[in-house]
Amino acid sequence: MAEKKKTTIVLFSGEYDKAMAAYIIANGAAAYDHEVTIFHTFWGLNALRKDQHVPVKKNFLEKVFGKMMPRGADKMGLSKMNFAGMGPKMIKQVMKKHNAMTLPQLIEMAQELDVKLTACTMTMDLLGLQKEELLDGIEYAGVAAYIGDAENGSIDLFI
Amino acid sequence: MAEKKKTTIVLFSGEYDKAMAAYIIANGAAAYDHEVTIFHTFWGLNALRKDQHVPVKKNFLEKVFGKMMPRGADKMGLSKMNFAGMGPKMIKQVMKKHNAMTLPQLIEMAQELDVKLTACTMTMDLLGLQKEELLDGIEYAGVAAYIGDAENGSIDLFI
Amino acid sequence: MAEKKKTTIVLFSGEYDKAMAAYIIANGAAAYDHEVTIFHTFWGLNALRKDQHVPVKKNFLEKVFGKMMPRGADKMGLSKMNFAGMGPKMIKQVMKKHNAMTLPQLIEMAQELDVKLTACTMTMDLLGLQKEELLDGIEYAGVAAYIGDAENGSIDLFI
Repeated sequence: MAEKKKTTIVLFSGEYDKAMAAYIIANGAAAYDHEVTIFHTFWGLNALRKDQHVPVKKNFLEKVFGKMMPRGADKMGLSKMNFAGMGPKMIKQVMKKHNAMTLPQLIEMAQELDVKLTACTMTMDLLGLQKEELLDGIEYAGVAAYIGDAENGSIDLFI
Repeated sequence: MAEKKKTTIVLFSGEYDKAMAAYIIANGAAAYDHEVTIFHTFWGLNALRKDQHVPVKKNFLEKVFGKMMPRGADKMGLSKMNFAGMGPKMIKQVMKKHNAMTLPQLIEMAQELDVKLTACTMTMDLLGLQKEELLDGIEYAGVAAYIGDAENGSIDLFI
Repeated sequence: MAEKKKTTIVLFSGEYDKAMAAYIIANGAAAYDHEVTIFHTFWGLNALRKDQHVPVKKNFLEKVFGKMMPRGADKMGLSKMNFAGMGPKMIKQVMKKHNAMTLPQLIEMAQELDVKLTACTMTMDLLGLQKEELLDGIEYAGVAAYIGDAENGSIDLFI
């Protein structure tokens, strides 16, 4: 039995459009029977946040980060033409018209396709994000696990 | 006969400097006899726009996007030190002094070196870009074609 | 004897957080016995600048670039939540609390782990950076050398 091809994506960026690109490629690769991992680090962790407030104990700086960063995929801005939040509204309106999947739908689909969604524990610590605040059913790992996944990958991307 | 090595680049970003990096790597890989594809998606599509206005039918939001996005490679801004358009002028002045190729020249060279320039049809729809507005001699494809190119690539980058 | 795996990273971005990600992955790969290269180009060159002023002859535009760009890794801003310099201070405070390595420490560690740090000579010319201004013990190369390193790489990233 041939071994499965692997696709490993580091999602570093915290923008709606970049996260969309990451998830579209991930889901596409999964559909082509790749073993796919998205390793969420730094601002990319925000794509995994639950959209409601989760009461956890935080120190002052962690609270500031928590407030300033988008709570979940749907609240992320655009990397270009964000226009103080108008850009995402425009893009979402167009996406609706074209029946394109939204980012939360793409993430749900990734989970159904068994794409492994990993949160980088080191940057969770730095940004003060706790497991309770992130989506259920994801994994937690560090850079060593990422290297292990990526070094045998057909497609390795940093987004 | 040995199979050719492949280089596949996703050009997501719409900035002059990032597109330059993408095309310099692409042309370098082509010179080393790789089979090279640049898959232009989201803001990266703007590198493929013709620099003159092309009269096509658009709805309101498509017109807004069309106006706000740079029309062609030469009009793109910088990812750093853009200074409301001063940065690109400065960089271009320096490039001229050093006889460095401009982005439009790099794109022309890529076409001469048979680099496959692909426009992502899904994001063309979202941004309201039509084939008539893009350069001649390019290809049109979706994420499946990208996966097919990238999964056997020696070099896969997301820029 | 099995050949070593290779990791080749293009560091294009000039932000503290992105450079941190690049160096954490590079050092991780080196710890897993990969042969690792970070190819610094465009704004990524700033990570290699010495933090003191080095008196070299520059023309007007080169002086402007030299002044506007961060002098060394420690002075780089964040790609998100920079808040006119407050963001990096906050992140560094949190990093200190967590005993996380700073970017200058990560670069030093990379040099100890024999990660090859390369400066792109073409963009050094464009930005007017001279060898005297960059860290000791690094290498100088162009896109051809990058392709040579990357085409046999297990992990190739553009950051």
